[in-house]
Amino acid sequence: MKDFNSVGIRHCNNQLQVLDQTRLPREEYWINVTDIEQMYEIIKNLRVRGAPIIGISASLFMAKYTENKQLTVAEFTQIAQHLASSRPTAVQLSMMLGKMTKLYTETQSVTKVTGLALQFYQEDEAAGLQMADAAKDLIKSGSRILTHCNTGCLVGAGIGSGLGIIRAAHESGKNIFVYVDETRPLLQGARLTAWEMQRFNIPFKLICDNFAGHLMAENMIDLVIVGADRIAANGDTANKIGTYSLATLAKYHNIPFYIAAAHTTFDLVTKTGKDIVIEERHASEVTGVVTGFGSFQVADVDCPVYNPAFDVTPCELITAHITNYGVIKQGEDIATRLVGVL
Amino acid sequence: MKDFNSVGIRHCNNQLQVLDQTRLPREEYWINVTDIEQMYEIIKNLRVRGAPIIGISASLFMAKYTENKQLTVAEFTQIAQHLASSRPTAVQLSMMLGKMTKLYTETQSVTKVTGLALQFYQEDEAAGLQMADAAKDLIKSGSRILTHCNTGCLVGAGIGSGLGIIRAAHESGKNIFVYVDETRPLLQGARLTAWEMQRFNIPFKLICDNFAGHLMAENMIDLVIVGADRIAANGDTANKIGTYSLATLAKYHNIPFYIAAAHTTFDLVTKTGKDIVIEERHASEVTGVVTGFGSFQVADVDCPVYNPAFDVTPCELITAHITNYGVIKQGEDIATRLVGVL
Repeated sequence: MKDFNSVGIRHCNNQLQVLDQTRLPREEYWINVTDIEQMYEIIKNLRVRGAPIIGISASLFMAKYTENKQLTVAEFTQIAQHLASSRPTAVQLSMMLGKMTKLYTETQSVTKVTGLALQFYQEDEAAGLQMADAAKDLIKSGSRILTHCNTGCLVGAGIGSGLGIIRAAHESGKNIFVYVDETRPLLQGARLTAWEMQRFNIPFKLICDNFAGHLMAENMIDLVIVGADRIAANGDTANKIGTYSLATLAKYHNIPFYIAAAHTTFDLVTKTGKDIVIEERHASEVTGVVTGFGSFQVADVDCPVYNPAFDVTPCELITAHITNYGVIKQGEDIATRLVGVL
Repeated sequence: MKDFNSVGIRHCNNQLQVLDQTRLPREEYWINVTDIEQMYEIIKNLRVRGAPIIGISASLFMAKYTENKQLTVAEFTQIAQHLASSRPTAVQLSMMLGKMTKLYTETQSVTKVTGLALQFYQEDEAAGLQMADAAKDLIKSGSRILTHCNTGCLVGAGIGSGLGIIRAAHESGKNIFVYVDETRPLLQGARLTAWEMQRFNIPFKLICDNFAGHLMAENMIDLVIVGADRIAANGDTANKIGTYSLATLAKYHNIPFYIAAAHTTFDLVTKTGKDIVIEERHASEVTGVVTGFGSFQVADVDCPVYNPAFDVTPCELITAHITNYGVIKQGEDIATRLVGVL
């Protein structure tokens, strides 16, 4: 496998490595990925998280592992299915592993599946720049932007989706200001997005998720940009829990609400949001706080909890989807706009 | 001073004691309150929090301290003003201390100010029961209720406002279920309301604040009940940050949104919510988590933060105010309904 190097995943000295996102912002610790159960644990426990990168890293792992172990088609298929089960909601993981399995079944060629995994990486890198370009007319100079979760350079091979757009707007001199939702329970905003804002010197303030309505009412927010984990054929969008609340608040305050996502996030087989499976996660994420600084209890350990990882925002609350194939406005037919791409 | 005993404040063995709410749910630790700066620190650092109890505890402290130190009117006035400055948004603190100061100025009678402080305590105890009675037709059997922050037996002398109503509904056999917002940044829901739900065996689940919209969209919430820190003459209501987001989400989903508050929370001098001062608190509350289990960092300590402690919900988002003088529906004139009371 040839070498490559992004903020969250790299190949060098013949080793596939991922940045352990659970240790941020305290330290930048790279994990050598060599084993199936290790890769499964890395995705399951969110050491690598963000819809594109979990598909890309699992695909690169499959290529690397096949290169080392000379897998049979049956072994390849079984391992890919196992890895795909580590997180059900994000579409890229199962879609990319499905394409990898199909190609290996047809060709049994290590070179071909390695090429495909690297292609996923390169396409995602390009997609970030294309989304930023597509969004440039939507972000006016001086905009105050609210974002949720983490959608930047850690979620894929390049600048990312939502935060990639924000970073490009900042770097083009637009004098933007970002409000970063901390994003409970897993605090991707506080741990990762704040780290990324500081890394790229983008002016921002961290807020708790429940402040959003107040900021909108006080006329402190001009637009909302978030990412997506799976977008149904009608535009309904699954994303990190809390996205639906933000979209509803934005609608009430007449604030544009944008989903930024590469074409790989669209799942035309899923007709509407009602068909998207929502992953429910462990109570301990809510009764405690887990970060790069350690883990910490906030409520009684036996406190009953409801902890859905995602929610679905219906298309009528989404001003537009910003994709690497341009901006798809509310009401436009997604299948028509992405014809030949998916 | 005669003895009394509630969940959060008590007088026994000639000592005024408050329960240190910052140590919950890990331990129930009572503080002997003897000193001015100690009382100031207790309120400022939220060892005692909840709009009624901070006014009641400061008033009882003033009575007790005056009994021990034989204060001059000038001393009394200066100490009361100092304590009132510990938290600016909740109305009871300054209003009750103002009444105490006026009475002491007029009478210089320790007995009279002690009587007034005990009257505040007894009126709040009665108010909880009266609010629960007023609300009983609003809560149907089987209701799923969403609440925010902590508005129960810790916030005053009796069962409290919002949670008092919920507890009474549970105890009357209405088979209710409660979703408890954890209430970032200070986690009053996770630390205190969850503790109270467990104490009284009320069925509940803890959620993160940003889940609320999703629960409403999934038809899991029948009504929202929260408390208040200050209610303006037109009904606009200041309460814990995050209340406005909930009210807006409830409006969008056609879910009744109730404010529960004793008459002492109404401030007819303040005409509308625009006149309410919103206290901004320290960044460390958002970059970290502080609970009875200790304190813990989640983002970089130098991360910039916006941290308003309260927000204002305009009256048009409030279905009704539930008071100890009955239910005041949206559109009813508050001054007329509370005539002779305030």
